Amino acid sequence: MSQPLENIALIGAGTIGLSFAALHLRSSSTCKVVLYDPRPDLDSHVLSLLPNYLPPTHESVTSLLASERLLFAPSLEEACTPSTHLVQEQGPESAEFKTDLWPKIEALVSPTCQLWTSTSGIPASVQSVGMSSPGRLLVVHPFNPPHIMPLIEVVPSPATPEALVESACEYFSRIGHRPVVIRKETTGFVANRLAFVLFREACSLVQQGVVRVEDVDKIVEASIGLRWGIKGPFASYHYGGGEGGLAGFLQNVGKTVKDVWSEGEGPIEGAWVEKVVGQTEEAYGAVTPQNYVERDIITRRVLEVIREEREAIAREETET
Amino acid sequence: MSQPLENIALIGAGTIGLSFAALHLRSSSTCKVVLYDPRPDLDSHVLSLLPNYLPPTHESVTSLLASERLLFAPSLEEACTPSTHLVQEQGPESAEFKTDLWPKIEALVSPTCQLWTSTSGIPASVQSVGMSSPGRLLVVHPFNPPHIMPLIEVVPSPATPEALVESACEYFSRIGHRPVVIRKETTGFVANRLAFVLFREACSLVQQGVVRVEDVDKIVEASIGLRWGIKGPFASYHYGGGEGGLAGFLQNVGKTVKDVWSEGEGPIEGAWVEKVVGQTEEAYGAVTPQNYVERDIITRRVLEVIREEREAIAREETET
Repeated sequence: MSQPLENIALIGAGTIGLSFAALHLRSSSTCKVVLYDPRPDLDSHVLSLLPNYLPPTHESVTSLLASERLLFAPSLEEACTPSTHLVQEQGPESAEFKTDLWPKIEALVSPTCQLWTSTSGIPASVQSVGMSSPGRLLVVHPFNPPHIMPLIEVVPSPATPEALVESACEYFSRIGHRPVVIRKETTGFVANRLAFVLFREACSLVQQGVVRVEDVDKIVEASIGLRWGIKGPFASYHYGGGEGGLAGFLQNVGKTVKDVWSEGEGPIEGAWVEKVVGQTEEAYGAVTPQNYVERDIITRRVLEVIREEREAIAREETET
Repeated sequence: MSQPLENIALIGAGTIGLSFAALHLRSSSTCKVVLYDPRPDLDSHVLSLLPNYLPPTHESVTSLLASERLLFAPSLEEACTPSTHLVQEQGPESAEFKTDLWPKIEALVSPTCQLWTSTSGIPASVQSVGMSSPGRLLVVHPFNPPHIMPLIEVVPSPATPEALVESACEYFSRIGHRPVVIRKETTGFVANRLAFVLFREACSLVQQGVVRVEDVDKIVEASIGLRWGIKGPFASYHYGGGEGGLAGFLQNVGKTVKDVWSEGEGPIEGAWVEKVVGQTEEAYGAVTPQNYVERDIITRRVLEVIREEREAIAREETET
């Protein structure tokens, strides 16, 4: 059992920092959040943004400040102390800034204090080069905005002990988020990497005049977005292959898949089919008719609420 | 105003064919659907599958057959007649089969009968080579299953008159689907092309040991799937760029985007930035705080109903 993360220092109070502040504050009625950010308008910035990130019925920001559950630290030294359980950084996306910062933080906190960076692209192994214990630093990359989107990509450096990875996963699972461990430091980690590869193809199709921007969005919303919000690509193709599962899918539409790949990056090297089919069958088992029934029930309901919410928003906009 | 599509012949009654049969039948209380498929077990196949595709309160399949709103045709000649308004084909994905089929159908129907193929990969210009009027054939590619998923990719060949494209779009919009016109015949059209490019990267990351299959699915479900089901990639990145919109986004995370692209297919050629930023600004205007509020309201609600539905399904499975 790891120590509680009750005394939290957030370095950087931009939109990601404040969104994480809201997430931490709403997830425990006892945790304390100290914000450090050198911006001159920190007070007014927090008072204007943070209330939007907290649930409507949550204790107000003024009250959080009065009870000192939320604090502004005038310096790094006052934010990071021997009683801090967790320092989470979301400062500028600059390797120089981060590399310079961590040894300073390391010198201020206790040896058991956890050190997380919310970076979207600078691996822990790069940020930690100046630290005495580089393995202490862990990437916990959110999907914006983290107080709503459930994903946390937990990306250890090769030096990070497993216990620190587990502790971060345990924390985020407990507060209802969905941590996923990325086993190798990869450019863009996984979510953005997948997104940027699709985005490249989308930009390329627009550039070639195949579709317009708004049509790409309509297409994605009405097909893969809707589907993948409910079942990710491997589960979807496993169910889409009928009784043959993913292996059947790769046979049925394998030609179109290969044709699309050959116009782009080309084939994947090695025995990838065995690996992805094996892991898919291990994770999801055989496909049953019940799988479709469940997928379709959830899909209808999601379509329904998206339509309802859009109509409600449109009505409100007409009325005001 | 185009003619009504009331007399519909569906060629091929696999899962896509029956899903379209359900879509047409539930969308009009007067249309007639004739099914042609040489499979020997057509009756029992339709009676076992089609009821699952119709809404629970819909007229039963037995009653539809009794009133002849649903018919089985013993031959192509009896399915496609001079009074047919629409022939929609979802037979085997073979260019030879389809190229052979269309001239036969063309000879059976009236000159105003609309001719659609639900192919996922064989362009109208290929399928129509033997027809006297090749421009009559139109791809209307669904996302499986079409009685639930709203997308219809309408892909004309260069010979297709605009009126036929408009007529198909009008039909699918009227019945609550979301037709999108693809302006050039492209391998995999657009939805699958985008999906397969992302799927390639996902398989490659699994092959490299960066993540496991089930983790890719968790990542996509909790990030880009959820997001893109509500707002497509261009709208999402436009809002993700703050006041700078998509142009701002490309500056902020442009380095990671470029790094990911350079490890894969490389940069896009030409003045693509101007084109995608221009079209995005034209489609969505300037970013306002209200955009985030709306996106976040819908996202919370979608997350909530997915959780509710999953819990309800799990409870039902425990009880039975």
